[in-house]
Amino acid sequence: ELVEMFEELPTMDVAEFMEEKPLEEVIEYLKKLDLEDQGRIFSDFSIDLQLKLFHELDRRTFAKIFGQMFSDIRADLYQELTKEEQIELLPYLDKKVREDVIILSAYPPETAGGIMTTDFATIFADMTMAEALAKIRKDAPSKDMIYYIYAVDHSMVMKGLVTLKDLVMHDPKTRVNEMLNEFFVYAEVNEDRESVAQKIEKYDLVAIPVLNSLNQLVGIVSHEEAIDIIRKEETEDMEKFMGIMPSEDDEEYMATSSFHHFKKRVVWLVSLAAIGIISGMIINEYQGVLEHFIILAMYMPMMAATGGNTGSQAATVVIRALSLGEINDKDWLRIVFKEMKISFMLSVCVAVLTYLKIAFLSFHAMLPPGFTMSQIAIVISFAISIQVISSAIIGAGLPLVVRRMGGDPAVVASPAITTIVDITGLLIYFTVATLTLGIS
Amino acid sequence: ELVEMFEELPTMDVAEFMEEKPLEEVIEYLKKLDLEDQGRIFSDFSIDLQLKLFHELDRRTFAKIFGQMFSDIRADLYQELTKEEQIELLPYLDKKVREDVIILSAYPPETAGGIMTTDFATIFADMTMAEALAKIRKDAPSKDMIYYIYAVDHSMVMKGLVTLKDLVMHDPKTRVNEMLNEFFVYAEVNEDRESVAQKIEKYDLVAIPVLNSLNQLVGIVSHEEAIDIIRKEETEDMEKFMGIMPSEDDEEYMATSSFHHFKKRVVWLVSLAAIGIISGMIINEYQGVLEHFIILAMYMPMMAATGGNTGSQAATVVIRALSLGEINDKDWLRIVFKEMKISFMLSVCVAVLTYLKIAFLSFHAMLPPGFTMSQIAIVISFAISIQVISSAIIGAGLPLVVRRMGGDPAVVASPAITTIVDITGLLIYFTVATLTLGIS
Ligand SMILES: [Mg+2]
Ligand SMILES: [Mg+2]
Ligand SMILES: [Mg+2]
Ligand SMILES: [Mg+2]
Ligand SMILES: [Mg+2]
Ligand SMILES: [Mg+2]
Ligand SMILES: [Mg+2]
Ligand SMILES: [Mg+2]
Ligand SMILES: [Mg+2]
Ligand SMILES: [Mg+2]
Ligand SMILES: [Mg+2]
Ligand SMILES: [Mg+2]
Ligand SMILES: [Mg+2]
Repeated sequence: ELVEMFEELPTMDVAEFMEEKPLEEVIEYLKKLDLEDQGRIFSDFSIDLQLKLFHELDRRTFAKIFGQMFSDIRADLYQELTKEEQIELLPYLDKKVREDVIILSAYPPETAGGIMTTDFATIFADMTMAEALAKIRKDAPSKDMIYYIYAVDHSMVMKGLVTLKDLVMHDPKTRVNEMLNEFFVYAEVNEDRESVAQKIEKYDLVAIPVLNSLNQLVGIVSHEEAIDIIRKEETEDMEKFMGIMPSEDDEEYMATSSFHHFKKRVVWLVSLAAIGIISGMIINEYQGVLEHFIILAMYMPMMAATGGNTGSQAATVVIRALSLGEINDKDWLRIVFKEMKISFMLSVCVAVLTYLKIAFLSFHAMLPPGFTMSQIAIVISFAISIQVISSAIIGAGLPLVVRRMGGDPAVVASPAITTIVDITGLLIYFTVATLTLGIS
Repeated sequence: ELVEMFEELPTMDVAEFMEEKPLEEVIEYLKKLDLEDQGRIFSDFSIDLQLKLFHELDRRTFAKIFGQMFSDIRADLYQELTKEEQIELLPYLDKKVREDVIILSAYPPETAGGIMTTDFATIFADMTMAEALAKIRKDAPSKDMIYYIYAVDHSMVMKGLVTLKDLVMHDPKTRVNEMLNEFFVYAEVNEDRESVAQKIEKYDLVAIPVLNSLNQLVGIVSHEEAIDIIRKEETEDMEKFMGIMPSEDDEEYMATSSFHHFKKRVVWLVSLAAIGIISGMIINEYQGVLEHFIILAMYMPMMAATGGNTGSQAATVVIRALSLGEINDKDWLRIVFKEMKISFMLSVCVAVLTYLKIAFLSFHAMLPPGFTMSQIAIVISFAISIQVISSAIIGAGLPLVVRRMGGDPAVVASPAITTIVDITGLLIYFTVATLTLGIS
């Protein structure tokens, strides 16, 4: 009765259910299902469970399920096997499956070829609609997604596409040729996966055909893959933005070794700490001032923190707007002007808060003769409001500059902005203090 | 000839081409196209251009195009009109369009109802496949997406679904009933849009049916909408993480007023600056120490910056892994242990750098008698390595705690982590310094 349920439920739910069960039970369940369902459910398993089952099942049984898996997921699994395991498995596979797996595994993982599937339905452009529909009826049971049907010539060069809806709705005697959509959107097999996903997103496609350099149809990438890529690329962007180097492979948190995590984080961390030498040198320069006005040292951290926060906020907003296409680097003047207005309002709030904070915390602090506390409070508040405005401009401006130079604005990491505004903040702080207090 | 091209090219390309042209030219082009193409291309225009055309065209012409738009985009446009404009437009609309627009506009924008479209194809569960196909042929020309076909009873209660492929592949005499997929995934009309998108993502759906509380089919949300929602939700998460309050409506950067931007940023900025009072109080407490060891003040900013960077890196990685479902708050012990290992390696690198930095920058600094510079350098390096480890644990731990308490880990903003590790950093710094140097 459980097995009957399995046939009705979405495969993902069945896969999740089995994922929690002991390995022997999973094998029991699988055996009771027909081969096609086995392949589908197996495709929805985590790569961990797939590998465990590969090791547990005899090669012949495994090869049968493997032959029914979705071709893109199958190729990913194959690439996780060791060279020896691959060689052991190959003789058990059908010729078609073997070729498919080997070809798909040959493409770099971040390209269209690396993410495409070979489960698609083709017709010949010179068929009539009735002939086309007959070919689909013959071929389709093994194809998962036949919403788009691709018209090719006899060397697999893609001529255009029709939808299954077109086939059903039109006069059976019409030739496919006559109603072919020839200005179709496609991806090249070596195209970066991010650009493939963006095409699917922009044109609202259910799937995009992938062509090789001879314009032959070699695969398709479907909408669900676009979502996975967008998730991965957003993770990559967020990591870049937080000063983490993206790695070639998208490994999961736990599966990634501590040393690998360390390598991804250490570069920025140490570089920024090294650049921090400049901050240290500035403070060194003004050591004399700090000795007389120890109170200035107390409010230094707040300058850095507030500047870092303001700069990162501005950078976040501008980077997202750039990557969603809401703004363009040509708009830079309007953007900078807007950020000036926003940060002016912010600076007023922060300055008032700073004044109150100094009045509250430092009313009894010692000062050199001739200086009053409210004088100092005004000077520090003024410095911090300049810091807020300049940090917002730096935070918003840097991604625009990087985009202008043809780079990816997401590389403008928040920690880098923090470090830069630390430096500009100290310069602002000491310049304002020495000028207005007439000290040096 | 240009118009002939327009009929062949993807509507999004045509829309982008027109977007660059003067308004009168756009109107000329539109007039030459058939009404259906007008509606499709109009749907792909930016909301700005849609509104401009609404104001430029006479009501009757506009109403015709409006009737051909995709129903979800149409409802969004309708909601951008003023009350008066809405009332002016309504009499020109067909009864069906009018009802559709009014009903779709009634749902809150962040729910399934607010994003669904009413362009879907239905059949009755008691039909034969042949009857069903005939009904599709009759209804479908006006439906854009008929990959899934929804079986309903005569009160529109959803009974299950079949794919167009099922209809084409099966014996025409089979009853729809017999091969209906009854365990279908669906969304409730009031469900949060994020959860709707997650279902589409998890089950790899081309579209998901939306049911009301009586299980009546009221709309569908399609895969392309899921991508848009995922983009918006990722923006929201990134903004939250960077201390920006998400707003109800997803306005574009330029379209949002400076004051609105200000409001989204000021809360966190001022709160954190206020919490910064605690940092100020700690520094105040150790004022005597700073007066004697002015060198300690010089390296205070580095403590804060490095701690903030390490903590934010750890939080980023953990939040992404949580939201992609790679880890679970139940794994907290393993995660914290892993972060300890990673941050230990980081701390060694940072400590060595700090020692070198102090040796390089401060070799001639003045020290109270009885203390050597290398002694100070070791103390500060030691303090910063504790800071790195504790910041990583705090950064990784906070999102886990928030998730554990049922909250959204993305609210653990990076600026908040920075502020917290500023405080813990100062405590570590002064405690280590006073204990190891034997001062107070
Ligand atoms: Mg692959
Ligand atoms: Mg789209
Ligand atoms: Mg569209
Ligand atoms: Mg996939
Ligand atoms: Mg990439
Ligand atoms: Mg990217
Ligand atoms: Mg809407
Ligand atoms: Mg998916
Ligand atoms: Mg799947
Ligand atoms: Mg949309
Ligand atoms: Mg939301
Ligand atoms: Mg969210
Ligand atoms: Mg910081």
